[in-house]
Amino acid sequence: MNEQNGAGKPDKATANAQWGGRFAGGPSAIMREINVSIGFDKVMWRQDIAGSLAHAAMLAKTGIISAEDEQAIRKGLTEIGHEIEAGTFVFEDALEDIHMNIEARLSERIGEPGKRLHTARSRNDQVATDFRLWVRDAIDGISAQVTALMHSLATRALEYADTVMPGFTHLQTAQPVTFGHHLLAYVEMLSRDHGRLADARKRLNECPLGSAALAGTSFPIDRKMTAAALGFDRPTANSLDAVSDRDFALEYLSALSIMAMHLSRLAEEIVIWCSAPFSFIRLSDAFTTGSSIMPQKRNPDAAELARAKVGRITGALISLLTVMKGLPLAYAKDMQEDKVPVFGATEAIALTLAACDGMVRDLTASKSQMQLFAGSGFSTATDLADWLVRVLKLPFRTAHHVTGRIVALAEAKGVDLSQLSLSDMQSVEPGITADIFSVLSVEASVASRTSEGGTAASNVKQQATSWLKKTAAHPFSGEPA
Amino acid sequence: MNEQNGAGKPDKATANAQWGGRFAGGPSAIMREINVSIGFDKVMWRQDIAGSLAHAAMLAKTGIISAEDEQAIRKGLTEIGHEIEAGTFVFEDALEDIHMNIEARLSERIGEPGKRLHTARSRNDQVATDFRLWVRDAIDGISAQVTALMHSLATRALEYADTVMPGFTHLQTAQPVTFGHHLLAYVEMLSRDHGRLADARKRLNECPLGSAALAGTSFPIDRKMTAAALGFDRPTANSLDAVSDRDFALEYLSALSIMAMHLSRLAEEIVIWCSAPFSFIRLSDAFTTGSSIMPQKRNPDAAELARAKVGRITGALISLLTVMKGLPLAYAKDMQEDKVPVFGATEAIALTLAACDGMVRDLTASKSQMQLFAGSGFSTATDLADWLVRVLKLPFRTAHHVTGRIVALAEAKGVDLSQLSLSDMQSVEPGITADIFSVLSVEASVASRTSEGGTAASNVKQQATSWLKKTAAHPFSGEPA
Amino acid sequence: MNEQNGAGKPDKATANAQWGGRFAGGPSAIMREINVSIGFDKVMWRQDIAGSLAHAAMLAKTGIISAEDEQAIRKGLTEIGHEIEAGTFVFEDALEDIHMNIEARLSERIGEPGKRLHTARSRNDQVATDFRLWVRDAIDGISAQVTALMHSLATRALEYADTVMPGFTHLQTAQPVTFGHHLLAYVEMLSRDHGRLADARKRLNECPLGSAALAGTSFPIDRKMTAAALGFDRPTANSLDAVSDRDFALEYLSALSIMAMHLSRLAEEIVIWCSAPFSFIRLSDAFTTGSSIMPQKRNPDAAELARAKVGRITGALISLLTVMKGLPLAYAKDMQEDKVPVFGATEAIALTLAACDGMVRDLTASKSQMQLFAGSGFSTATDLADWLVRVLKLPFRTAHHVTGRIVALAEAKGVDLSQLSLSDMQSVEPGITADIFSVLSVEASVASRTSEGGTAASNVKQQATSWLKKTAAHPFSGEPA
Amino acid sequence: MNEQNGAGKPDKATANAQWGGRFAGGPSAIMREINVSIGFDKVMWRQDIAGSLAHAAMLAKTGIISAEDEQAIRKGLTEIGHEIEAGTFVFEDALEDIHMNIEARLSERIGEPGKRLHTARSRNDQVATDFRLWVRDAIDGISAQVTALMHSLATRALEYADTVMPGFTHLQTAQPVTFGHHLLAYVEMLSRDHGRLADARKRLNECPLGSAALAGTSFPIDRKMTAAALGFDRPTANSLDAVSDRDFALEYLSALSIMAMHLSRLAEEIVIWCSAPFSFIRLSDAFTTGSSIMPQKRNPDAAELARAKVGRITGALISLLTVMKGLPLAYAKDMQEDKVPVFGATEAIALTLAACDGMVRDLTASKSQMQLFAGSGFSTATDLADWLVRVLKLPFRTAHHVTGRIVALAEAKGVDLSQLSLSDMQSVEPGITADIFSVLSVEASVASRTSEGGTAASNVKQQATSWLKKTAAHPFSGEPA
Repeated sequence: MNEQNGAGKPDKATANAQWGGRFAGGPSAIMREINVSIGFDKVMWRQDIAGSLAHAAMLAKTGIISAEDEQAIRKGLTEIGHEIEAGTFVFEDALEDIHMNIEARLSERIGEPGKRLHTARSRNDQVATDFRLWVRDAIDGISAQVTALMHSLATRALEYADTVMPGFTHLQTAQPVTFGHHLLAYVEMLSRDHGRLADARKRLNECPLGSAALAGTSFPIDRKMTAAALGFDRPTANSLDAVSDRDFALEYLSALSIMAMHLSRLAEEIVIWCSAPFSFIRLSDAFTTGSSIMPQKRNPDAAELARAKVGRITGALISLLTVMKGLPLAYAKDMQEDKVPVFGATEAIALTLAACDGMVRDLTASKSQMQLFAGSGFSTATDLADWLVRVLKLPFRTAHHVTGRIVALAEAKGVDLSQLSLSDMQSVEPGITADIFSVLSVEASVASRTSEGGTAASNVKQQATSWLKKTAAHPFSGEPA
Repeated sequence: MNEQNGAGKPDKATANAQWGGRFAGGPSAIMREINVSIGFDKVMWRQDIAGSLAHAAMLAKTGIISAEDEQAIRKGLTEIGHEIEAGTFVFEDALEDIHMNIEARLSERIGEPGKRLHTARSRNDQVATDFRLWVRDAIDGISAQVTALMHSLATRALEYADTVMPGFTHLQTAQPVTFGHHLLAYVEMLSRDHGRLADARKRLNECPLGSAALAGTSFPIDRKMTAAALGFDRPTANSLDAVSDRDFALEYLSALSIMAMHLSRLAEEIVIWCSAPFSFIRLSDAFTTGSSIMPQKRNPDAAELARAKVGRITGALISLLTVMKGLPLAYAKDMQEDKVPVFGATEAIALTLAACDGMVRDLTASKSQMQLFAGSGFSTATDLADWLVRVLKLPFRTAHHVTGRIVALAEAKGVDLSQLSLSDMQSVEPGITADIFSVLSVEASVASRTSEGGTAASNVKQQATSWLKKTAAHPFSGEPA
Repeated sequence: MNEQNGAGKPDKATANAQWGGRFAGGPSAIMREINVSIGFDKVMWRQDIAGSLAHAAMLAKTGIISAEDEQAIRKGLTEIGHEIEAGTFVFEDALEDIHMNIEARLSERIGEPGKRLHTARSRNDQVATDFRLWVRDAIDGISAQVTALMHSLATRALEYADTVMPGFTHLQTAQPVTFGHHLLAYVEMLSRDHGRLADARKRLNECPLGSAALAGTSFPIDRKMTAAALGFDRPTANSLDAVSDRDFALEYLSALSIMAMHLSRLAEEIVIWCSAPFSFIRLSDAFTTGSSIMPQKRNPDAAELARAKVGRITGALISLLTVMKGLPLAYAKDMQEDKVPVFGATEAIALTLAACDGMVRDLTASKSQMQLFAGSGFSTATDLADWLVRVLKLPFRTAHHVTGRIVALAEAKGVDLSQLSLSDMQSVEPGITADIFSVLSVEASVASRTSEGGTAASNVKQQATSWLKKTAAHPFSGEPA
Repeated sequence: MNEQNGAGKPDKATANAQWGGRFAGGPSAIMREINVSIGFDKVMWRQDIAGSLAHAAMLAKTGIISAEDEQAIRKGLTEIGHEIEAGTFVFEDALEDIHMNIEARLSERIGEPGKRLHTARSRNDQVATDFRLWVRDAIDGISAQVTALMHSLATRALEYADTVMPGFTHLQTAQPVTFGHHLLAYVEMLSRDHGRLADARKRLNECPLGSAALAGTSFPIDRKMTAAALGFDRPTANSLDAVSDRDFALEYLSALSIMAMHLSRLAEEIVIWCSAPFSFIRLSDAFTTGSSIMPQKRNPDAAELARAKVGRITGALISLLTVMKGLPLAYAKDMQEDKVPVFGATEAIALTLAACDGMVRDLTASKSQMQLFAGSGFSTATDLADWLVRVLKLPFRTAHHVTGRIVALAEAKGVDLSQLSLSDMQSVEPGITADIFSVLSVEASVASRTSEGGTAASNVKQQATSWLKKTAAHPFSGEPA
């Protein structure tokens, strides 16, 4: 940048130099950038230390290293853990990754015993183990957030169990429903998400450690011991598979993608409900932002971001599926591209869940506005048709046809169904009696939907209460709303 | 097309007319194409009839329709099923979808009772039910194919339990492994795929029928009865969720995507192994094709296609995730875009599984070629390093360093490790004894890898036998190889 | 299916038989399904005949075949074209693809000359040529549809040039805009889409014919002649690249994906605008559908489908990118997976464009409803801030702050900005004069935005008129609305 | 972490606290994470300053601010640029993004004039402008790298213009080709990539500045002036479109996706060619790495990473397409999700191009190994068939059939085509003369393929020379290989 061009002026030469210059160091600069993963894989330091502790204990138990060596290793690793926590550990690019950074520091601290730690393992099974542990922790953390959001939704569902709102299909008013029922639909979705994570965790929970580079080892290791120490259910069964498998990451990303899609639907509804024409809900200042030029704005940024994150997460899934396509066994460097997508998607879903939880707890529903639209648009036409079937014994298809003609009549007169006179209705179907009016109100409609899973307030209360119990133990349940 | 232009000559005017012309009929032509789904959803005819039979039986049991009506409906639907099977049923575009085609034909055959069938349900819960049943059937079918492929792989793994081959990482010779061990790695992958399908099936197995349009119904229906009749574990719990949920399709597509990725890896290996320089395996004429211009070719088309199909299947997953993004509750027409991806992905994976199964059963391994490459490239360097650790008690990192120098010496001399003289080795590490030669052969290396999951033939035989038992009951087990 | 189970009852055995049964024929059944592409590639018959005619003419011109042979070939192919158009041509699976079906029929009709047609070409360059021609035709067809939609949008924009509506950011009322301006935003998007297709067409327009299998040929062919005959700009420059390149399909799918994303935004807006709370526009019965259970519904199915199609198209792009990943040169069977995504995406975008065009021409805007929301929500706060800058010379950031306080005052009083008294405003900023009211109306706000690209009606009229001229020649311009 | 659990031991409570704890600050912590983008958008500082300088100059020229204010702003921004370059600028999260960080610092430095800078613009048009400038710079940088790689490929192609190698289709030996020809195929791909970037740049090159929030402005701005100052061809035409358009990012990502796919193919070939059975090429130590357990390995990590990066880049494209799906106009917060994918993809492709360039310049081909496989597998069968057509005037299909029988004969005898005796061949086709042997050698085959785009060395030399000229001016051409 020189003054003549003006500070910051982007020009072609600068751009080229900037891009090209990055690799001006030649092969070594390129290979450094390819091989150095410490910039992102250091977040796995806890998992790497845990794995090494388990491995060392096993090596000592089986006599592959001495008890003294193991003690030195344990002490060294524990202290390294403290250094990292304290922020005093110096991560070095030259040591490429978290595994070598820690092992090198260990040898530096304890000497020869440190050089014995890597006996009977390889970076291939080590990284597979660390990454599984990390994903398992992430599953636990995300699952807890899901439970918390389910709890918040059920809490608000109970509060709004008998608040009527228009039920939409095609975003057209279809039939009245309760707002509590609507919120509980998301609890159902999230409970499936929770189940998918739980299943992924079970399938993930086998320990690759001891698979070594790809073929196993000739040392008399005890894989059951390390597996148990790290909380795994069992060792993996095939060493070639163990070092070249990233299914656990893919299954996790798949579950997150579906979850993020669910949250994008909730977010979309919040955005629409907050618009002036709908005004179904209001978010407080805590979850909206203003505008640099339009001070009156109350932008639902949190909802928009929650809606957008499905892009990042789906993109991460596609990234890793594409990376894994067509890779010959066993380990290939391509697989190092597994971490950035998984770390990024985890961060994205954690924020999205927190934002949704915050908004659900924050929102205030406008009962009057919801009621207004629930009762318009001939929303009880189905109730009318059902009455014709139930009372007049018309076949459903015939009742449907009759109802259509009555709606057309009401539309022509510019009134709602309950505002038609009895004689108006009888002009279409003579058998109709005054009893018909008992089903044409929004309240009657909603109250009548007591079929299993239906929208009646009684159902909603029961379901919400049941979910509150199931999610009571969630880790954030003590937080103030 | 006119003669002057030459038959078939594409020109701009033709192209435009062709594309524009399609919708020249105006709105009605456009809406027909948007609404008509019978072209693809007719494959769900079995599921639609099954759902209607269960629904009618329930309506009669709960007194919503009469026993006579139910009998007429049952008879009518059964006959329609026969018509469709016999190919005499006329599907009509004007009736849009499989549901209306069957219902209209029913009314045509049995009159008024047919018009009562749709009582207390809606197309929204009907299509959700049909599609779940279809996906469930597909899961069962694909799972059976997976089991069959696992059986074939285990069969060949047992046959090749002690056939050595080079184990690769980065497609570079790393350590010798057994071909049986390599094949069993795919059995592990497929067993996870099988587990994912089983989990998806469990989560899918709730019945949406009775959710009606979106809010449930006021009719005294018995959802547990229809759920049980259709083999579902229970009814869905929330009507809004039930009609707007496509998780079961997404989870199924996720499982297929990961499975297809696995098969793309197997296929890639087959393609590489069939290449002239590798020549590790040979496929018979049954699974290769010739060339229109190069009569000598033996193209592994089946493997290439199996490798490619992951594209179609991943694309289907992305399609449906994108479709569902940000959809407000409840049903929206967008969801009609769920079927083509699911049907297409199912067809693709079924063919891919069949092709892989066929190739696995067909292939012949060239033991000599595999042996040749297993023994070159200093593939037993790790065994040398491990010997230094085990016998000379060198720390692993030191042993690693010593081995590197010995390999460099061998490379400089243009010989393999086992061809170095003892004094050559002692020039690097004086402690080495003649015992070292006992670990430098491919056979010794493989035999020593007896750690759990390791590549030793004894492990492979045990694992293969175990898998053969577990997969013995697969539906195609009686087929000739 | 047997009567005892009930017609159509899906059961596990049936499902398995159905899936497994498909490939019960063993290898030959599998390979047939892998190799037979006639089911989908027959849509390229025009392109295949055109390519063969050009090739034969060239072979004759260069003396590789005789003039008599060429005449026979031309006559035969022309007649085959007529047969296909007439529907009398019998496509045979045994002949695999469109190329072999036509060539075999040619030999059947004309004998030996037919067997000379394939001289100096291969299926590899033949299919690459046919597929390029097909994609080029599709680009022309889709481009014409894009132009037509731009024309329709500009037509409506001119009609609604001075209709005010709320301009949204974050779906919150931001500033008033004109509906015409909003519609023209989509014309801009579509003009970029059109440009992308045009660029793709240019890059595509090189002829692979004559690349033969992969290496070129020793026959003295004239590639410039065939290229020119088929409307290509030049022959491709490298035979290996020519037979293994599918960039033209990928670039086309990329352009369609972005276009489909644009249309999904328009469709989303139509769905929202048609909702009861918004009621900004109304679609006629021609573009809405009713409901099987709610006769009052007016579902915007066409818009929902247009919104959804981006899923199919993006999925197609991902499919083909995934297929092509990591393929060694030159041709591989994987590439046969190029056609289904391209054909499917083309069908999807053609329908989406037609639906959007239909809806744009069909919709009626509710000026009163748009005006109502345009004037609420303090939408002219920016105008107030700008007045403070312009007249009182306040720095923008200061004016912004003052405006915020005035909006808060209005909000507290429950009135809109123009309903505040002068003294109310002066209580916040004493310098304000009565002139302020001249900028607080929706009309004044919109009229003032005359900056280039701004929303003022004068701008809109000029832009719309300009676009109408540029798109006047579109092929559907004469169609009735 | 406490000692009792062991340092680093991951446990469920820790995981939950870690995940939940992040947002324990409640709404404010969540909103901070949602709104703060300075962490990634600070890379646009040059572009932001450039945009502000152009804007201020225009405001002064049109009299909206004074010349003195503009001078103060220019001086202040220039100094801020120096601060950032020098690393002394303090980026603050509380100021959210790069725009507010710079503007706040400006006001801090120069007082009131700084508060006038934001007159007649909004963050919406400001960020759209900055991001376009950034993408434009990236296009320039990546294009230069593409040219450099083309230059390197052409350089090596000229060097290997007459080195024969087996040409593969289906990875089966098809016909001999030259290695130079093979390398030039990638030059063709890259030249299309270059063209796509150039077209994207042209379409991108319109200036959004002056569109303000969404509706334009009432200030008498001169958008042509700012557009020109920033190197844009013209201002954007519609303010609503300008602030809600991210086509330029999507088109850029599409172009990168196709490019990354090309490079994944080159990388796959390098991986295969480096494998022991192929041994077609050798990479030096500069581009390979060893193994922690297998010191003999020479892993082509750079190639594997280059192969994998298509995953990251395609994922980025899908992310942004998904984000944009169905967004109503105009700006929505969702769009903030545009930067991370674009920045990440740019970094990925830059590294991939550098790695490929490095490998292409580094590799050494094994001519003997290539020659060996080029001549086996009946690779000149096509030459034989063409001879039958050319000399004996057999129809091509007949010649093809005859050749097949001769190949079968050779295969049965275990010899290659050129090793058959004349009488052997005549036993299949009596017309064959000794002249046939003139076409059966690899050298003759390659030399005969002189058709335009064919593999003959003469073609390759001409093409390579032509490309070297066209790419001579690339910015890295002076670098040592």
